[in-house]
Amino acid sequence: MIGGSLAAALRQADAVGRFTGFDRDRERGARAQTLGIVDDLAVDPSDAVAGADLVILAVPVRANQMVCAAIAETLAPSALVTDVGSTKFEVVAAAEAELPDASRFCGAHPLAGSERSGPDAANRDLFRGRLCILTPTARTAAATLAACQALWQAVGARVICMDAARHDAALAWVSHLPHAVAFALAAAVGAVADEVSGLSGGGFADTTRVAASDVTMWRDVFLANRAGLLAALDGLGDELAALRRAVHDGDAAAIETLIGRANAGRRRVMG
Amino acid sequence: MIGGSLAAALRQADAVGRFTGFDRDRERGARAQTLGIVDDLAVDPSDAVAGADLVILAVPVRANQMVCAAIAETLAPSALVTDVGSTKFEVVAAAEAELPDASRFCGAHPLAGSERSGPDAANRDLFRGRLCILTPTARTAAATLAACQALWQAVGARVICMDAARHDAALAWVSHLPHAVAFALAAAVGAVADEVSGLSGGGFADTTRVAASDVTMWRDVFLANRAGLLAALDGLGDELAALRRAVHDGDAAAIETLIGRANAGRRRVMG
Repeated sequence: MIGGSLAAALRQADAVGRFTGFDRDRERGARAQTLGIVDDLAVDPSDAVAGADLVILAVPVRANQMVCAAIAETLAPSALVTDVGSTKFEVVAAAEAELPDASRFCGAHPLAGSERSGPDAANRDLFRGRLCILTPTARTAAATLAACQALWQAVGARVICMDAARHDAALAWVSHLPHAVAFALAAAVGAVADEVSGLSGGGFADTTRVAASDVTMWRDVFLANRAGLLAALDGLGDELAALRRAVHDGDAAAIETLIGRANAGRRRVMG
Repeated sequence: MIGGSLAAALRQADAVGRFTGFDRDRERGARAQTLGIVDDLAVDPSDAVAGADLVILAVPVRANQMVCAAIAETLAPSALVTDVGSTKFEVVAAAEAELPDASRFCGAHPLAGSERSGPDAANRDLFRGRLCILTPTARTAAATLAACQALWQAVGARVICMDAARHDAALAWVSHLPHAVAFALAAAVGAVADEVSGLSGGGFADTTRVAASDVTMWRDVFLANRAGLLAALDGLGDELAALRRAVHDGDAAAIETLIGRANAGRRRVMG
């Protein structure tokens, strides 16, 4: 979805020439070609990047290391390499370790997307008005950063730069934790599905929307940001324990306080 | 929101004559009159129901007992009384205990609404195509149930009947638990708002949408369904503990299994 959306958006912006795609899943690759998202299909990552000016890695975050190693030999020295992963510290470290010229890589995370995945979910307007976080390091060339900024601005994103570790610590709270919570909630309610089927409304639908997300993508996000996610899970655990205690004790004032803090917290986070 | 939406929907369906409103908050009552949702404003609940054929209780669930006691003297013997509360067991017991004729009461819970509240959020199409659960008891007259069914069908709802205790046990999972989780999540992330402000996307927004809900309404729901909510919180707690352990241990297979169960669980619950 993200890779396809970026390809479609760059084409729409007339910012690229010919696109070569590679997907581990051949059917998905063929579908992207049928939809006109990519012009050509490569047989492997190494073949895909041969002669490319720009390489976009749009794979589950833990696959980036393998892909970077696989493309290192055929990558043109002048090629710009970037990614779209939801975690950054491990991805950036892997790319800088595996690619022949770390100065030509810059990590990127567009805050866009949904629970959907695959080329049929691609949307060339996906990044319009959305934030894209770049995570350059001391090794990133200024020209690489500038090119990466121009790329995301061309598809309508607002670009900011951030340290990769800080990115992961922050996104653990506002993205990885909500996904973890939605997964746990959907799994817990799913266990009593026979008793509640047909009785759910908008609250359940929205609170668990992201629980329909891709297994491999989110398995990798959780594994690549273990410390950040564990800290966020513990913060949530404290709130849930306090709420459970208040409900158990019939403590109206404590429940009101927690809901009031939730109202205010959501407003502060969403700005 | 729910009371105002029902009044507006019944008027649109030409199912009622003149509407008298009462709201503990005088400004909110006046606003409902300005918006044309109610024709007249009463000075207290007792005044509001005098001479009424139909009485709709749309108050925080734990306020129903007091309101039923307050209207008992002026209520016409032939008046139909119903409510719109998110919990049913305690509300039905209170209404049957306090009202002069329990056979003329039937509990109702329309599965509609949102995080908004107050007359400005009223919408006459709110119930169209939505489920409304009625919870008649052995004391409910057949004519009362029939009138209540006709009322909700007139505003476009699909009506089903259910035992009040079973309703509360089921709604604990698909409605009260998602609200509890959203409140805890918004409060937890709100505690680190300075570090994450501006970085949240659609995942956080949707997962916490209902965390913007009214404090008093949800305090009462939680207190009126303590046993149901505690059971659901414990079910969620087990899933969160398993996920935390899997993330802590870097157990990819366990994470995949949980996300897979979340994907499937959501589909089963939403049908």
